Amino acid sequence: MSSKSKIIVEISEIPKLKNPHLICGLPGSGYVGKIAVDYLIEELKGIKFANIFSSSFPPQVSIRDDGTIDLMKNTLYYCKNKPDDIILLTGDAQPVTPESEYAMAEEIIGICEKLGVKSIYTLAAFITGTFSKNPKVYGTSTSLQIVNEFSKQGIFTMNTGTVTGMNGLVIGVGKTRGITGVCLLGETSGYVVDAKASKAILEILSKILELKLDMTTLIKRAQDTDQLIKTVEEQMGQRQSTEQLPMPSQDKKLGYIS
Amino acid sequence: MSSKSKIIVEISEIPKLKNPHLICGLPGSGYVGKIAVDYLIEELKGIKFANIFSSSFPPQVSIRDDGTIDLMKNTLYYCKNKPDDIILLTGDAQPVTPESEYAMAEEIIGICEKLGVKSIYTLAAFITGTFSKNPKVYGTSTSLQIVNEFSKQGIFTMNTGTVTGMNGLVIGVGKTRGITGVCLLGETSGYVVDAKASKAILEILSKILELKLDMTTLIKRAQDTDQLIKTVEEQMGQRQSTEQLPMPSQDKKLGYIS
Amino acid sequence: MSSKSKIIVEISEIPKLKNPHLICGLPGSGYVGKIAVDYLIEELKGIKFANIFSSSFPPQVSIRDDGTIDLMKNTLYYCKNKPDDIILLTGDAQPVTPESEYAMAEEIIGICEKLGVKSIYTLAAFITGTFSKNPKVYGTSTSLQIVNEFSKQGIFTMNTGTVTGMNGLVIGVGKTRGITGVCLLGETSGYVVDAKASKAILEILSKILELKLDMTTLIKRAQDTDQLIKTVEEQMGQRQSTEQLPMPSQDKKLGYIS
Amino acid sequence: MSSKSKIIVEISEIPKLKNPHLICGLPGSGYVGKIAVDYLIEELKGIKFANIFSSSFPPQVSIRDDGTIDLMKNTLYYCKNKPDDIILLTGDAQPVTPESEYAMAEEIIGICEKLGVKSIYTLAAFITGTFSKNPKVYGTSTSLQIVNEFSKQGIFTMNTGTVTGMNGLVIGVGKTRGITGVCLLGETSGYVVDAKASKAILEILSKILELKLDMTTLIKRAQDTDQLIKTVEEQMGQRQSTEQLPMPSQDKKLGYIS
Repeated sequence: MSSKSKIIVEISEIPKLKNPHLICGLPGSGYVGKIAVDYLIEELKGIKFANIFSSSFPPQVSIRDDGTIDLMKNTLYYCKNKPDDIILLTGDAQPVTPESEYAMAEEIIGICEKLGVKSIYTLAAFITGTFSKNPKVYGTSTSLQIVNEFSKQGIFTMNTGTVTGMNGLVIGVGKTRGITGVCLLGETSGYVVDAKASKAILEILSKILELKLDMTTLIKRAQDTDQLIKTVEEQMGQRQSTEQLPMPSQDKKLGYIS
Repeated sequence: MSSKSKIIVEISEIPKLKNPHLICGLPGSGYVGKIAVDYLIEELKGIKFANIFSSSFPPQVSIRDDGTIDLMKNTLYYCKNKPDDIILLTGDAQPVTPESEYAMAEEIIGICEKLGVKSIYTLAAFITGTFSKNPKVYGTSTSLQIVNEFSKQGIFTMNTGTVTGMNGLVIGVGKTRGITGVCLLGETSGYVVDAKASKAILEILSKILELKLDMTTLIKRAQDTDQLIKTVEEQMGQRQSTEQLPMPSQDKKLGYIS
Repeated sequence: MSSKSKIIVEISEIPKLKNPHLICGLPGSGYVGKIAVDYLIEELKGIKFANIFSSSFPPQVSIRDDGTIDLMKNTLYYCKNKPDDIILLTGDAQPVTPESEYAMAEEIIGICEKLGVKSIYTLAAFITGTFSKNPKVYGTSTSLQIVNEFSKQGIFTMNTGTVTGMNGLVIGVGKTRGITGVCLLGETSGYVVDAKASKAILEILSKILELKLDMTTLIKRAQDTDQLIKTVEEQMGQRQSTEQLPMPSQDKKLGYIS
Repeated sequence: MSSKSKIIVEISEIPKLKNPHLICGLPGSGYVGKIAVDYLIEELKGIKFANIFSSSFPPQVSIRDDGTIDLMKNTLYYCKNKPDDIILLTGDAQPVTPESEYAMAEEIIGICEKLGVKSIYTLAAFITGTFSKNPKVYGTSTSLQIVNEFSKQGIFTMNTGTVTGMNGLVIGVGKTRGITGVCLLGETSGYVVDAKASKAILEILSKILELKLDMTTLIKRAQDTDQLIKTVEEQMGQRQSTEQLPMPSQDKKLGYIS
């Protein structure tokens, strides 16, 4: 029996969607993207329609809140919305090898093609190593026209670097199949789980896609992040001034941009 | 010729079993699970019926007690027992890549299906970094009902974290085929081979499965562990108080829980 | 779905070429080879005719100058030239696993065979850890006759060591198909992007292949390197004499020679 | 195109051999096995009959003495000898992944079966971290009968541990096909290329297989090792007594025993 990587997609329902956009937020630095997509699932009342399992996810099972365990998986949700329907993708993990990340990106794009997805938004972190009062949102896209409109939308452009992992590959592979891709990266220190960066991204994304979001709970979580940052800064102040806080390690599996 | 991972199962006998439960204890942190299953093989007079070889085991051969060598392998034993028959799985190693761990878990579940296994118990270590007089036993399961009964059985529940390696995947893959899985984790420092943790697990497991075990020899081994811990603690006491015993490294291949 | 490595070659045109030589300069230490080939593309007005994508490139997308992103790729250009036509190969990255480096080398040699390539030149870095006023050029070849002529051409020979990565494998695999290979390695510190080493290589290569090159811009860039080196040396002088500049890390993916 | 590992065997001649024994000495710790087999090739006038290439060898080419380069390879030689013919295997490298080590071992055993090999000797290093005046030779075998005869032959037995890499797997895979295997490990510090350990192994092996060897040159090389060790020890003596020579790193690819 071969042990090459296997991807299994369990689909419970094939939704009929109007001009759907895919929004991806997988676990990564500061959980910026995952927090944002989890929030969208809650607020837009996302309906789960597919699980994706892969033997290239970390070889482990997750313990859930209720004490039970399950294999690592990614999950797809759809939301009936106006003007366009929304598909949401999040999950427990990203694949652990380069080849399997490409294979997973192709699998996801295959699903997008079947559902008629015309554009993809991946939500990620832009790591700075310092705490920011008002985190900026950076962007890159497969379309020069979209990049040119970023400044009007309050999005900062980049002209060098890479977007690593699934947030980059989903857009890169999508481009080869004619699907427009946008990556929005919320500025974050990299030291803490950062709901402030998630909030900054969602404020911009909700304008672009005309999403009606009640931001109350996320504002609360962003305040928690502020409190957490304050605590970390106080602890840093108590250290000797010669000591440097180490740069947050940009773990390959978690770091979106290097 | 391809070098993708290959699994070879050598079966000498297909046993006919009554409501069999599989108990797995592969080498890992503190050898907690392996010591427990090796003890069950001895006490329940397990009969070897299959060897599993894999090109994803560590690329090495083991030197046996008698000076001869053999390829790394996992081995399956069965024990006629009342009320239910028991299958035991242990071995020299776990596979070394994520994909091959998933593939091995699928192979094992395939064997379980052929033998009519209805529930699986994997025995593992819960690493704390400190020595415990009376090691607790933690548990997680694919079934919420089983989790809810843990406290009555003296098992502590967990509501976050992961179970890594074969102890997690066998249960996770089993769940996708409708086999109930339970993972029992014995509290251990991670510093020493810990028969005390194995004994703690077997005391609980023998009640659940109504196994008649003479624990005399294991109690002796647990006392050896106590002696070993005492020696380590004395050595630690002789160090300067500013020195810290390093946290036991949670080697990916050996560590069950992170 | 399998996630084994996949290579996709997109060919826009199959050029008809006269005695073509392939010159490769992929990203590596000091970007010595890439700078040289990028310069040849500019000066010889290379015409792009093929892109090579691979799921064994780093799992990320590159942000281009204009703010857009694209998958990692290698690209082939041809240049009508006298006496012989030239094919140029450069790109964003080298594959990340041994097997996929061999597979990519075979893919490239397959393309060479179709285009009638008779000899291959790979341009690489010879890392010394010290700054050199006049970087030497080292060479090795699949042909003893070519090695014997190196000294007349101002190329230094080597008689031990390895050439790692694509610069070595393209030549090694080419040899098995009867294609002559030469690797030219420009001496470089390994600390800075080194256009001086690129210039040293191109001065020799342009004589061998009778390329008419206007070196003005590259001389300018080499002067920039000189300036950069001066700055680094000044910073080093300001350190305590006991402090050692760490040897440049010979990153597997970037380091050509070990 | 797939990039799974590929093994290519180039056979120039299929020798007809009488009761052949295979002796393997691939590059490893202290080059103990490789020096020994290279010596046998010289002394027994081995005739090259096959090259083995693999995409799982390190992705690099070797620079030979004459300045030319070639792909990494393993090579097989045969020697007409009395009472039994001898096959010798050595090479530039061992495969770099577990799966590809198993695959290479299977390839080699396949060749052994075709040539009627009845027993295999792998020559390796037993690393001690200290310098030994008269290095011992340790042994392990697939046959208990052979292990029991070791003491009469001046070979020390082992009853725990592993033999890693090709020296172990060739014997382990051979066992599954009914070929007897012996691994002889020469005691070595692990700090230096150790011809003394090679000589110790060959003195024993030549008695077992009744090889007529002129040991003059190897005795010379063993004296060079002695000189090298003396130099290292003097350097160690000049260090502060509190400084410890670091244990030689047992590189996975090179270390035979752990």
